[in-house]
Amino acid sequence: MSTPEELLELIEPYLDELALTPELGELERSLPAAAALELVHNFSLVHDDLPALDNDEVRRGRPSTWAEFGEGVGILAGDALLAEALRLALTYPTPDVARELVQATLGMIGGQYLDITGGETDLASLHRLKTGRLFAASIACALWVAEVPEREQAPWRAFADDVGLLFQIVDDILDEDGYLLERGAEGARALADETAERAQARLGEVSADTSVLSEIVAGLAARTS
Amino acid sequence: MSTPEELLELIEPYLDELALTPELGELERSLPAAAALELVHNFSLVHDDLPALDNDEVRRGRPSTWAEFGEGVGILAGDALLAEALRLALTYPTPDVARELVQATLGMIGGQYLDITGGETDLASLHRLKTGRLFAASIACALWVAEVPEREQAPWRAFADDVGLLFQIVDDILDEDGYLLERGAEGARALADETAERAQARLGEVSADTSVLSEIVAGLAARTS
Repeated sequence: MSTPEELLELIEPYLDELALTPELGELERSLPAAAALELVHNFSLVHDDLPALDNDEVRRGRPSTWAEFGEGVGILAGDALLAEALRLALTYPTPDVARELVQATLGMIGGQYLDITGGETDLASLHRLKTGRLFAASIACALWVAEVPEREQAPWRAFADDVGLLFQIVDDILDEDGYLLERGAEGARALADETAERAQARLGEVSADTSVLSEIVAGLAARTS
Repeated sequence: MSTPEELLELIEPYLDELALTPELGELERSLPAAAALELVHNFSLVHDDLPALDNDEVRRGRPSTWAEFGEGVGILAGDALLAEALRLALTYPTPDVARELVQATLGMIGGQYLDITGGETDLASLHRLKTGRLFAASIACALWVAEVPEREQAPWRAFADDVGLLFQIVDDILDEDGYLLERGAEGARALADETAERAQARLGEVSADTSVLSEIVAGLAARTS
């Protein structure tokens, strides 16, 4: 049994250290959610690359998972990435982060299904499902981790939707696809600028330092690759 | 604005009805978890049936999902079943049910991976992963739904492990596979009986009416198809 003095010697430095890193602590709390989002993104890539879907043999300059390890392992690896993502999201004390992630995942899968079966849907709806949902979840998960009350989340969520849309429009401009085919080069560019402007305006509605997010929006709007 | 008398007329019958169905209420609370377990089971079947894994064209006397709708849809349908299962598990106020489910899913995927890649593992470990984990989760999810405190869960969980093992041994006896090949007909039968006896003994350790579970164990031990 330790004396009260010994216990104090143990506790004091620990408390000192805690007090030194509140900002770091906040960031570290978001790491499981951030990793979970990345794993869901990779789950979708690993499955989409399969021969029965997009049949891509190369991903990020390397053989795709199925091309390197076989189709069976490719299917199981994607499954495991999704399950592992949820496991991480479930390390939080409340189910909110995991709920956001699973809703985004269902949206993505639904979008991919509409895409390969040619289900009736417009381009905007398809993009909202296939890429927009995960952008939205990235922001939404961070809101829960930071314990932003639900009644204050609306402008953040509107911002997230605009960022997802902006990403997709610029992607289509660079790939000469989707929005570019639908609206022509000038029309697509105008839509991108308008969306970027709206996203910046949303940031003005929240009371937080959003300079990094503002830079990200500017970077997304201006990107050339 | 209603008078107090009018409000009372509205509330009284509602309360009467509530009081009539406490047992039903308890059971209904378990339905999302039960459905989630069934969806995870079906996720694994839909993916395992794919040509790159078990290549089964028939499931329950009907064309398997990929055989009917194509491989791409088969992959996406499995993904959606898993995500939908987690969505249901996440309808509870705490993350416990979803955590059990995701751990079981990771075990199942790991078992299937070891199976197809011929990774070094013994039969018992493989079965524990491929079928045992979901049996265990079925009991564990019910424990959380019924709010059984963690310190009282041990005998239930030990019971669940034995039921999973019993199912698998009898399955192997009927399929002339696994444990039958490893121990011969008599050895496998003896192991099944011993496991069933142990499962029944576990039920004796819990203070609840376990007559239905006891019947299920007897039925599993005696089943011939």
